[in-house]
Amino acid sequence: MSKGFFITLEGGEGAGKSTQARLMNEYLLSLGREVLLTREPGGTIEAEKIRNLIVDRDGGNWSALEETLLFFTARHHHVVHKIKPALDMGQVVICDRFTDSTIAYQGYGRAVDMDVIHFMQDHVMKNFVPDLTFLFDLPVGEGLARSSRRQKYAGSTEDRFENMDVTFHERMRNGFLTLAEQNKHRFVIVDATQSIDDIQNQIQQHLKQRGF
Amino acid sequence: MSKGFFITLEGGEGAGKSTQARLMNEYLLSLGREVLLTREPGGTIEAEKIRNLIVDRDGGNWSALEETLLFFTARHHHVVHKIKPALDMGQVVICDRFTDSTIAYQGYGRAVDMDVIHFMQDHVMKNFVPDLTFLFDLPVGEGLARSSRRQKYAGSTEDRFENMDVTFHERMRNGFLTLAEQNKHRFVIVDATQSIDDIQNQIQQHLKQRGF
Repeated sequence: MSKGFFITLEGGEGAGKSTQARLMNEYLLSLGREVLLTREPGGTIEAEKIRNLIVDRDGGNWSALEETLLFFTARHHHVVHKIKPALDMGQVVICDRFTDSTIAYQGYGRAVDMDVIHFMQDHVMKNFVPDLTFLFDLPVGEGLARSSRRQKYAGSTEDRFENMDVTFHERMRNGFLTLAEQNKHRFVIVDATQSIDDIQNQIQQHLKQRGF
Repeated sequence: MSKGFFITLEGGEGAGKSTQARLMNEYLLSLGREVLLTREPGGTIEAEKIRNLIVDRDGGNWSALEETLLFFTARHHHVVHKIKPALDMGQVVICDRFTDSTIAYQGYGRAVDMDVIHFMQDHVMKNFVPDLTFLFDLPVGEGLARSSRRQKYAGSTEDRFENMDVTFHERMRNGFLTLAEQNKHRFVIVDATQSIDDIQNQIQQHLKQRGF
């Protein structure tokens, strides 16, 4: 392939996205591909500053609507300065979370007006979407149990959501599954209760089908 | 009056807005009114962080579109946490720059898609507008000469624009004048070539007409 390929990993907390992203990175490197492994929110110096802005809450919380605007601002910077240039050079880009997370967390989970999110996707992101999205699906109880067990790491934006009620996590999970249903051409649903090896095997099978 | 009143000061650099805002503050206090004097971008801890984000450019410039999103995020926080609560308590709010600056600088000046700006104003700000806006109008050459003479102050977001070409400043000035023409009910155009005292007298006359 001479053209780049854009892969995202999506899902709730504790589903193993980051581990699988690293393993996918190693697999693609072993095939001789050039790979950019990145994450959201963040990925550029400026976008990481927005990540810090969202995490630090010494000046009060941002509302879900304000967070949505910050996520799209960071995403735009990330895409323009890092993701698109890598794709233009023929690289494979692996991104831990992307727009689907904003739709699931802020839209379905926290009831931000979907008109705002869709407007951002259409007019700011100009409908830029991944070529392939792995959705790591996990029953809500299992995901919450996993993320409360694992050590909190500095700079995590995810622990903000762990204290939210179970119905929030159910709305979010259903949001991801709805997105997968509406975008079958690019979504692969992964049963995240499987072992790390089984999941990675499944991912590699899909990548082979896509010509890797 | 038992209801609050929202006044903004707009215009290019070097037009004397901040000085007049302070004098207006003193005048209204002398009338026994409670006043909140504030500024954009900024006005809350979180919004000031966005101001710093825009000013610091160690990670590369933000695009005009990204700046627009950041300005509206900061503005939403400022309005929800500071401006509306003050108005609800019956205070007069004086704000140095507001949405009209985003329309003039980013929209008219830097050609950000007006659809994005209007969407933000309609769907994020819910069409929240000032009761009264003083536009400090100055010929472009005069404004640039003034702002190059005055000492740069830390945290200024305005010096970014001083190096832009004269046509940018002309587009911006014409943008402000167009806004004034389209919104005669709330705009007062002030000839900013006048003396500080003459301008303040004109402002106080307008405030008297408004029942102050």
